[in-house]
Amino acid sequence: MSAANQQVLIAIIGAGGVGKSFLSQLTTLAARRSSPKLNLCFISTSKKSLYSSDYAPIDAEKALDGLAASTQAAPSVAQLTEYLASAPAKVVLVDNTSSEDIANAYPGFLSRGINIVTPNKKAFSGSYTLWESIFSSAAKGGAHIFHESSVGAGLPVISTLKELVETGDRVTKIEGVFSGTMSFLFNSFAPTSGAGGKWSAEVKKAKELGYTEPDPRDDLNGLDVARKLTILARLAGLPVESPTSFPVQSLIPKELESCTSGDEFMEKLPSFDYEMEQTKLSAEKEGKVVRFVGSIDVASKQVKVGLEQFDATHPIAALKGSDNIISFYTERYGGNPLIIQGAGAGGEVTAMGVTGDLLKVLARIS
Amino acid sequence: MSAANQQVLIAIIGAGGVGKSFLSQLTTLAARRSSPKLNLCFISTSKKSLYSSDYAPIDAEKALDGLAASTQAAPSVAQLTEYLASAPAKVVLVDNTSSEDIANAYPGFLSRGINIVTPNKKAFSGSYTLWESIFSSAAKGGAHIFHESSVGAGLPVISTLKELVETGDRVTKIEGVFSGTMSFLFNSFAPTSGAGGKWSAEVKKAKELGYTEPDPRDDLNGLDVARKLTILARLAGLPVESPTSFPVQSLIPKELESCTSGDEFMEKLPSFDYEMEQTKLSAEKEGKVVRFVGSIDVASKQVKVGLEQFDATHPIAALKGSDNIISFYTERYGGNPLIIQGAGAGGEVTAMGVTGDLLKVLARIS
Repeated sequence: MSAANQQVLIAIIGAGGVGKSFLSQLTTLAARRSSPKLNLCFISTSKKSLYSSDYAPIDAEKALDGLAASTQAAPSVAQLTEYLASAPAKVVLVDNTSSEDIANAYPGFLSRGINIVTPNKKAFSGSYTLWESIFSSAAKGGAHIFHESSVGAGLPVISTLKELVETGDRVTKIEGVFSGTMSFLFNSFAPTSGAGGKWSAEVKKAKELGYTEPDPRDDLNGLDVARKLTILARLAGLPVESPTSFPVQSLIPKELESCTSGDEFMEKLPSFDYEMEQTKLSAEKEGKVVRFVGSIDVASKQVKVGLEQFDATHPIAALKGSDNIISFYTERYGGNPLIIQGAGAGGEVTAMGVTGDLLKVLARIS
Repeated sequence: MSAANQQVLIAIIGAGGVGKSFLSQLTTLAARRSSPKLNLCFISTSKKSLYSSDYAPIDAEKALDGLAASTQAAPSVAQLTEYLASAPAKVVLVDNTSSEDIANAYPGFLSRGINIVTPNKKAFSGSYTLWESIFSSAAKGGAHIFHESSVGAGLPVISTLKELVETGDRVTKIEGVFSGTMSFLFNSFAPTSGAGGKWSAEVKKAKELGYTEPDPRDDLNGLDVARKLTILARLAGLPVESPTSFPVQSLIPKELESCTSGDEFMEKLPSFDYEMEQTKLSAEKEGKVVRFVGSIDVASKQVKVGLEQFDATHPIAALKGSDNIISFYTERYGGNPLIIQGAGAGGEVTAMGVTGDLLKVLARIS
């Protein structure tokens, strides 16, 4: 092994919740591995950056302080690509943002041989052209790209689906609860035992507990779930054009679509509680509970996101807290699906998926 | 890439249910991959073999017929090691047996650079010395070894546990139903709704449906579950000495331990139905159901296998058919565990785990 191969350079974009957890996991990982040495060479937010032209290692434990004190502006995507492609060792770019601009730049990074690991859903749920370009660029550049945390955070959802497909199983249906926020809301609003609260009160509680986006409409519009379904459908072989190319039920009442702020929306939501109450009651009449699910029927090529009713004993109804659940129905698994369940959001478990992806890249390049 | 690297040689030991399914999956896989070319060069049962001294490719689709017609005896382990270590390309040995002799030979294969993928539990649940020798030999020989199907067949149990550990999570407890046979027996005997049948009648039915080993005592003694627990405990960091070094509850009544055949056992079992009936009733008095589970408490280093009671709404109680369920409690996942559930036995899904492992090796060597 040449001297240049004895290190792998890590570049991180994004220093929010996931970024911070990832840095901490990287510190632990780097301390445990002697070869190759994992050296952080770059870290940035959308505004600032910390790196040097000679790729000198940055102490991961002090990277956030260094970044806070830095006066260096974030480089442009073109500058960053050039910087990383000229590095004296193999590079793994860790994109811990949810930026569409960075996502659009993946083909450029990959075709220059820069490996990528990321929880960023945008790249894989944007246009189908971008999806194809990402994987053809990776092949061309001999680079690897993994995105386990783009669905279900650290849960082994994408690796499992890929393995089912690659080993020749035929996936017939994928169904589940793909949003921690929606899981929490419906487990509280329509529990399998007990009454549950009013819809607007549950949304308010979820927001206060930090289970929703700062503006809860970003969860209630269903787009986050639609993005995840787009990714899984594509991996299962359906060339889904975009997250808006199939039916997605929004839980934002029509009358509130014109609200100009999240605050205004939250204030007016209680006036529309009867709609969700009706939905809950009509499920109860059938002895069921209502849940917000996504499903992919591979044979009929149908993807959809929205409310559905389940028996109280169904694993989707019995979910707890803000857990995700994903069921894979396949030819080999027959009537009983392969099920994966657990926390599908949160900095630590999302970063774990990213760190796991980094290990997969390292196994392939070193 | 040199010409020698443009192919990977596959050698298979074992041509039973898993072996046959694996051959079929290998045929599909080899047809889809152009580089490296996957060439079957060896296949054997405990008695016969099919291979040539020049490593000429064997048509995987016709391998079973060729093996049946072959008059070549199976080589000794020493001969096979020499044959594979002298091959003109990298080799993956697929051990589809449950042979202890083959398992004991793993260190020899690995130290000579021969990669191994296998569902064979014996190597990983034998003595701790063998376990250590396997992984030190792999490191020495630069070889890879994967054994996903040794626990839960194709379910992503081992890969998930490894990733939790490698990314720095702290696994606190592992609990689950690890035997398809035990799952089927208890889901029928003590269902969450309805009465269930008599214990001996359920065992008889499971045997007739092919859910048990030819001699059901091989399931009821708990050793199969104990072997799986040994593997998971070791991966979680506990140096468990052997599957008999922790408490394992056998469901073979003391009085029937001296039966000289499975038939005699099955004939006498109905006289002991009252024991299991008592167990079921005492759980019902608490509003619970009884299940045969394995658990690993990492902090207190306690591993145990046997009957336990669960609320009807607990995921372990709600299991269906012959499904396995495995719950990982970790620091990152907090109160709600990461759960994996689905078929944990059967030729197709077991072979899928092996084929998935083969893909992992290929990603690392080609």
